[in-house]
This record gives sequence, C-alpha cells and structure tokens, in this order.
Amino acid sequence: MTGTPSAQYSIVLRVEIDHKPGALGAVASAIGGAGGVIGDVALVSVAGDTLVRDITVSAGSQAVWEAIQQAINESPTAKVVAVTDRTFQVHEGGKLETTPKQPLKTRDDLAMAYTPGVARVCEAIADDVALSHELTIRKNTVAVVTDGTAVLGLGDIGPEASMPVMEGKAVLFKEFAGVDAFPIALATKDPDEIISIVKALAPTFGGINLEDISAPRCFEIEDRLKAELDIPVFHDDQHGTAIVTLAALINACKITGKRLEDLRVLVTGLGAAGIAVTKILLSAGVKDVIGADSRGLVSTQRPDYVDGTMNSVKRWYAEMSNPEGLTGHPGDHLGGRDLFVGLSGARIFPAEKLAAMNDDAMVFAMANPNPEVSPEEAAPYARIIATGRSDYPNQINNVLAFPGIFRGALDARATQITEGMKIAAANAIANLVAEEDLREDHIIPSVFDRDVAPAVAAAVAEEALATTRG
Amino acid sequence: MTGTPSAQYSIVLRVEIDHKPGALGAVASAIGGAGGVIGDVALVSVAGDTLVRDITVSAGSQAVWEAIQQAINESPTAKVVAVTDRTFQVHEGGKLETTPKQPLKTRDDLAMAYTPGVARVCEAIADDVALSHELTIRKNTVAVVTDGTAVLGLGDIGPEASMPVMEGKAVLFKEFAGVDAFPIALATKDPDEIISIVKALAPTFGGINLEDISAPRCFEIEDRLKAELDIPVFHDDQHGTAIVTLAALINACKITGKRLEDLRVLVTGLGAAGIAVTKILLSAGVKDVIGADSRGLVSTQRPDYVDGTMNSVKRWYAEMSNPEGLTGHPGDHLGGRDLFVGLSGARIFPAEKLAAMNDDAMVFAMANPNPEVSPEEAAPYARIIATGRSDYPNQINNVLAFPGIFRGALDARATQITEGMKIAAANAIANLVAEEDLREDHIIPSVFDRDVAPAVAAAVAEEALATTRG
Repeated sequence: MTGTPSAQYSIVLRVEIDHKPGALGAVASAIGGAGGVIGDVALVSVAGDTLVRDITVSAGSQAVWEAIQQAINESPTAKVVAVTDRTFQVHEGGKLETTPKQPLKTRDDLAMAYTPGVARVCEAIADDVALSHELTIRKNTVAVVTDGTAVLGLGDIGPEASMPVMEGKAVLFKEFAGVDAFPIALATKDPDEIISIVKALAPTFGGINLEDISAPRCFEIEDRLKAELDIPVFHDDQHGTAIVTLAALINACKITGKRLEDLRVLVTGLGAAGIAVTKILLSAGVKDVIGADSRGLVSTQRPDYVDGTMNSVKRWYAEMSNPEGLTGHPGDHLGGRDLFVGLSGARIFPAEKLAAMNDDAMVFAMANPNPEVSPEEAAPYARIIATGRSDYPNQINNVLAFPGIFRGALDARATQITEGMKIAAANAIANLVAEEDLREDHIIPSVFDRDVAPAVAAAVAEEALATTRG
Repeated sequence: MTGTPSAQYSIVLRVEIDHKPGALGAVASAIGGAGGVIGDVALVSVAGDTLVRDITVSAGSQAVWEAIQQAINESPTAKVVAVTDRTFQVHEGGKLETTPKQPLKTRDDLAMAYTPGVARVCEAIADDVALSHELTIRKNTVAVVTDGTAVLGLGDIGPEASMPVMEGKAVLFKEFAGVDAFPIALATKDPDEIISIVKALAPTFGGINLEDISAPRCFEIEDRLKAELDIPVFHDDQHGTAIVTLAALINACKITGKRLEDLRVLVTGLGAAGIAVTKILLSAGVKDVIGADSRGLVSTQRPDYVDGTMNSVKRWYAEMSNPEGLTGHPGDHLGGRDLFVGLSGARIFPAEKLAAMNDDAMVFAMANPNPEVSPEEAAPYARIIATGRSDYPNQINNVLAFPGIFRGALDARATQITEGMKIAAANAIANLVAEEDLREDHIIPSVFDRDVAPAVAAAVAEEALATTRG
C-alpha cells in the first residue's frame, strides 16, 4: 500500500542524463508517472554529452523508490547512478552535538573554564548545592529518559533503537524553547532500577522528561520519581498529550458553545495517554467520562475489577470515571456523548456509530498513523474533528506543550510540574488561537507557531511562582 | 599567601573615574600597587565629568581583589561601582549546550528528523543494533562519568560540585578533538551501583570516560566495566596521566641518552595516577620501579603485605615492582635513581635529597598546585624537570591525551582502549616535538598545540585497526 508522497520517504536520485533537449523532461515524467513528487533539482556536473543531476523526490513508500528508478532506467537518455535516503542521511552520526558555550582558545580561557579556576566554582557549589542550578548546565538542561519499551507505534524496540526518537525530542526542546536536552536510553526495563538510575543522574539535570516507557510501569516510575526528586519530572506521553488535548477541547467548546462541566466523554485506549487525558479532563471540570481498554468499558462492575485482577491504575480509573457503571464495547456507548477521544488504534468501530453522538459532536481520533476513524469518514457525523496527523487540520501534537512546559519550569526553578501548571499550559495553548481565527478546522495552533512555547513557558512559570509564593 | 597573578583570579572592575588628565593613571597605579595586573580597559559610558570604565584585572588571590578595591576607593578621583568574578561569569548557566546538528524549520525537516520518518531509522537499528554506532549520537559521543569523590585536589565534594570540572572536560573533548562529550555526575558512591548505572547508560554512548573517582574503587569500576561493555572505557586520571608521563619520558630519554630498559625509577603517590604510571612504564620496558604511598615504599616485605591487610591493587604493585624488596621512606631511596615521578603532594622530602640521583637526573614533580619539589629547588640536581603546572616548562597535562584517544577509538569503532593504543598515543605525543626542537625545557608539546589530538587519534586508530585485523 502506498501513502501520500511525503518527506519521510524522500530520496535524492543522482541521475546521469543525456545533454539534449527533452531529456530532463523525460526523467521528470518518469518520476511523476511512478508516483514521485519532485523537489529540488541540482546540477552536479557536466561531462561531455552527459549531465549529472541530483533530484530530490518525495514518495509514498519505499516501494515507489524502486518503481521510480526502474522508470528512469528504462528511458534511453537517463540512468540512476546513486540513491540517497534523505531520512537516513539526516540521522547519520546522530542529530545532536554537545558544544561549548564559549570558546577555549587561550591559557586564560583554560584557567577560568577549567583548572585551576574551576576549583573555586566547585567549592562554591560544595558549600551550597543550590548553586548548581546557577553555575552548571542544570540551569537549562533536561534529560529525555526512556527504556525503549513503548516507542512511537513500534513498541518495545530496545534502548539503542529508541535513540533517534529521543534525539529528535531533544532537537525539538532546543529548537522551540532553547532548552538543552540530552537523550538517555537505558538498558533496563526494571522500574526499581530505572528509578534508582534516574535519581542517581539527577545532579546533572534541571528536569527529567520521561518518554516512551510502557504502561502501567510508566505510572509508578513517574509517581515515585516525582516524590523522591526535587527537580521536575514529567512523562510526556501522558501529560504532553493530555495538555494539548485539553487545549483543543477548550477551543472546540468555544465553537460549539458547550461547557466542560456538561460534557459527556468517551475515551478509548487506556495506556499512558488515555489515563492522563482522563485525569486532566476531570481536573478541568469534566464530570462524565467513560473509558475503554481492549476488553471494553472500564467500570467497577467489570469482572476483573470485582475479582481484583485489574491493575491499580485501572482500578483508580474505574472508581473515578463511568458514574453510571456502564459496561461493554465502546462503539455501543457513543449515544449521547459530546466528545470522543481515541487513543487506541485504527477502526475500532464503524464510523456510522458516531451518528449516535449529540449534536455538535467533537471527535479527536488520535491514533497514529491510522486514526480510529478517518476525518473523511467522521465528517458527516462530527462538527469538529482533530487527529494526531500533520496532514489533516487540528493536529494534536505534544510538541505544542513539552518545550514550553520545561522552559517555564526551569525559568521558575520549579521543583515539580503541578496539575495547575499543566492546566495553565493548556489555556495558554488554547489562547494562542485568537477568537476571530477560531474555526472548526482551526482549534489549535500550528506546531511551527513560534509563539506557542514562549506563551506556555510564561503561563507555566507564572503558575509555578504563584503556587510557591502562595 | 598570594600567588602569581593569573586569570583564575581575574575580575572586571567597573570604575567611575573623574574625567580629567591623570585620573586613569592614578587608578592603574592603585591596581598595580595592590598586586593586580591590568588586561582590557573598556570605556562603558561618559556622563558629565565622569567616565565609567570596565577594567579587567588578574590577581594572585581573592585577598588581592579587596586590596585593589580599597586602593582605588582611597583615590579622590575614582570609585569602584561593581566587581565581576570572571571565572564565575564563565560558569553562569553551565559551559555546554546541546544543539541540533541540522535546523528543524519545516514540516519536511520534522517528517525526516522526527515523526513519522524517524520510525524507519528506529526499525533499522532494532534489526541491527550495530547501526546505532552510525545512526545515533553514539558515533561521536562520550560520557564523562564521575561520582564526585576525587575531584581535582578537593577530594569528595559530591556530584553537583564536580559538574564544573566534568563540563570543562567535555569542552576540551569538543575543542581539541571534535568529540561530543556529556557530563554525568552520579549521586552514588557504591561501586556496584556505579557499574550497573554505567552499563544501563551504554546504549546512549560510544565511549565512557571515567573521571575523578577515588582509588582504589576506580580500579574495580574500570576493570569490570571494561570486561562487561563493548564500548571503550577509560579512566582518565589513570591512563591520561600515564600516557603523557610516558610521552615526556620518551623525549627526556632522547636528550639524556638513557634507555627505558635501564632506568631506575621512584614513584611517590600510589593513587589512580601513580598505579597507572607504573603500569605503563613497565609495559613500555622499564624494569626497575619502586613506589611509595604515605606509609613508605611498597614491597612484599612490608608488614601490611605480610599480614594481608594491604589492598589488592597495592599487593599487585608490591609483586610487580621493587625487585630488590626495598622498604622505608622514599626520600631515602633516591640514590642511583634516574627518574623521580611525584604524584603525591608538596614537599615530601628536602630538595637536596635529589643530589643522590644518577647524573642527568629526570624529575617529574606533578603534584598540583604545589609540586613535590619546586623546579627552582630541583634545578641544581636535575637535568630535566617537568611539572603539572602551566606556568613552568614541560607541563604534563592529560589534555594532550584524552581528546585524541577517544577520537581515535571512535573513528576505529574500537571496543576497548588497549595497552597498545595507550603506548601508541604516548609515542605520537612524544613525536610531536621534532628532534631539532627537543631541549631540556621542551620535552612535551604545548596543551594548545592543535596538532596533538589529530596525531594521537591517528596513532590510536591505526593501532586499534591493526589489532582487530591482526
């Protein structure tokens, strides 16, 4: 199966082309005919009767690359001599470097930044450990910690294989909020060991962003680290998603005229994100949420609750949600719901089921890459549709939250990221879409809106300082 | 007590000076009279009859800062309005940042460096973990790991307070060899825990530089990590010092005409560096080494060896060194020695004791900041004198070794740093002083010689590849 051509499947084709009229056109037609979309075309060299060109081509899958090469090579006037996978090229040698903030060129530089001068700085910190937040990288540095057990949709792929994601996260931290982030992929899955390692690493960092750790282990790991460390700990898969979902919902309610207190909500998928989304909705005032895992709606009536085999997080969920004690398949409980939040997987029920929802239904189908219902299928039944994908309107993407959250927490020297700070972040994100710009297909700012992280940071820092002072 | 004015004690004085002839001269004289050496003088502002200037001043101690300010304030035409400690200024917010190697500005950038494109890179590594050395920061990134127990001459100051040194080390790695290094200061002193943490961190890194971990714990930690990890592990306090000492000795022997095989050597101080220096001397062909700790010469005759209370590293030392089984104070065993290597502390014996050494004696007095014997005092008795200090000739400084060692090891994808690689590094450093430039006061390149790290890297990589292929 082949998707929409995109940069994720882009290549640079180095092609030798006969130096005569029409030859480049033939290559371009071959590429287009095979399903490729041409970007840059650069002239590399001219030798005799032949031009060498680098042609950047986006495709919908790797299979298309083969078809493109074959089509070009079948032309009598052109030949592919090399193919570069641009995504792999971007990753060559990793995506991050660790650079000195100031050069070290002279003996005087060395005497201040290293020995002997550094000893005075060390002694000052030894006398007052709090100075480490001023005089070391702690002031601006966050660890992005994973064990590689729940990476993207790929699952437990191990720490080495998770590193490209963690590096990407660190790039986003720096790019959007000037936070220095360093990826740490741990070769252990034992929660106790992860907790003790992160505690031991804490003197280096000003904050800990947990990432792609599978549920339910992630809940215990985060809770215990929050209790035991005096720097902020934040599991982005939970709270990043929750914050941005709430931001989208706040704006969706402005459009539909619904109030959070009155909403009836169905959540599918009770992993890290589903649990956290439910928590933040309840914190923000929503009263009626029901949630389903792969075994159906969670309730205090379900056999695994009754017989005590349900895990503690879902027991909590059963007790805090589902006031009517409903059971069964989530697809049978869309009736009278205002908001569907999908964090489970593609096509868990037919789109027609959405017809049972209340008027002005809101559908946030966030499974990635394939949403629970496609926006096209949901359109007849929902007024507002959001997904996790960049190629549809209303993309609910964590990157709107985590850079600004940590920027704000570091700026305020917050010792934790509280529920209040998370809700402040959600409001800040929501408020970045001006009332006059609010539309059904524009409830959330673009991930490339550079105003988001500073606004989130300011709101988070303000809330942190208000709470500390209060 | 006040030392030589140096950048480690430099300040920027902001001074209001009357705008009339002679006023700046009076300030400069006041600074000089109090013991300060003036660097930059910058005009900040002119307001009415007053100039504001920023004057950079090096001093020999913090006490001099007080004297300087007092002297200026006593002048009727000038007044100090602010003082900035330049060393602390350099450390504000830490000395490192983590930066993206490529910008992330467009949706296409995001689709390749992060989701969805990154998933293909993750999957490739999950299929073949060795690719993590190509497609993640492992390719060029080293951890600088400490527990803060033996930092500079300050001892056990804790992980937070050790960070400025670790950051400085990371700056040197990047500056001299383009190696990305990240400081990790651990909040544990337990060797088993340190070992298990570093093992868990290994998927993130291409090498581990252990730093400022106290002896004898450092030996076990390094040995076990070397055995259990497939990336290079290198305790710089041991091997960096050993390599540069051997480099200096190779060149000192060229001048004195002595041969390593014939040398009779005394080492004082059997911490990490003293043990490692002895090891590398023995590896390089030296046969007669005696070593002393604070209880005197180590030998198989010493009571703590005989009764079994001596630790295992020193037992090894007693067995491998001191062929004559000498005992007693090291100062009584300089007779007939060619080389004295001091890694202990200031003034362990009177300088006159050096008179008993052989002709063309070589004295490497490396205690810092105060050498075992000062070069001035040693001069009558030794032909070649080296120290650890930057303000004397022949500075034996680890920075000549570690950046190039790791550069070479990473380039060769070496799985460890062998004795052969260390000796290759020492020879490379020694060879950077051309025969015609060799002099008694020039046996080792400057720490700012930019040719050193590449030469060391090439020699280390060549040896690594030769061994692997061999």
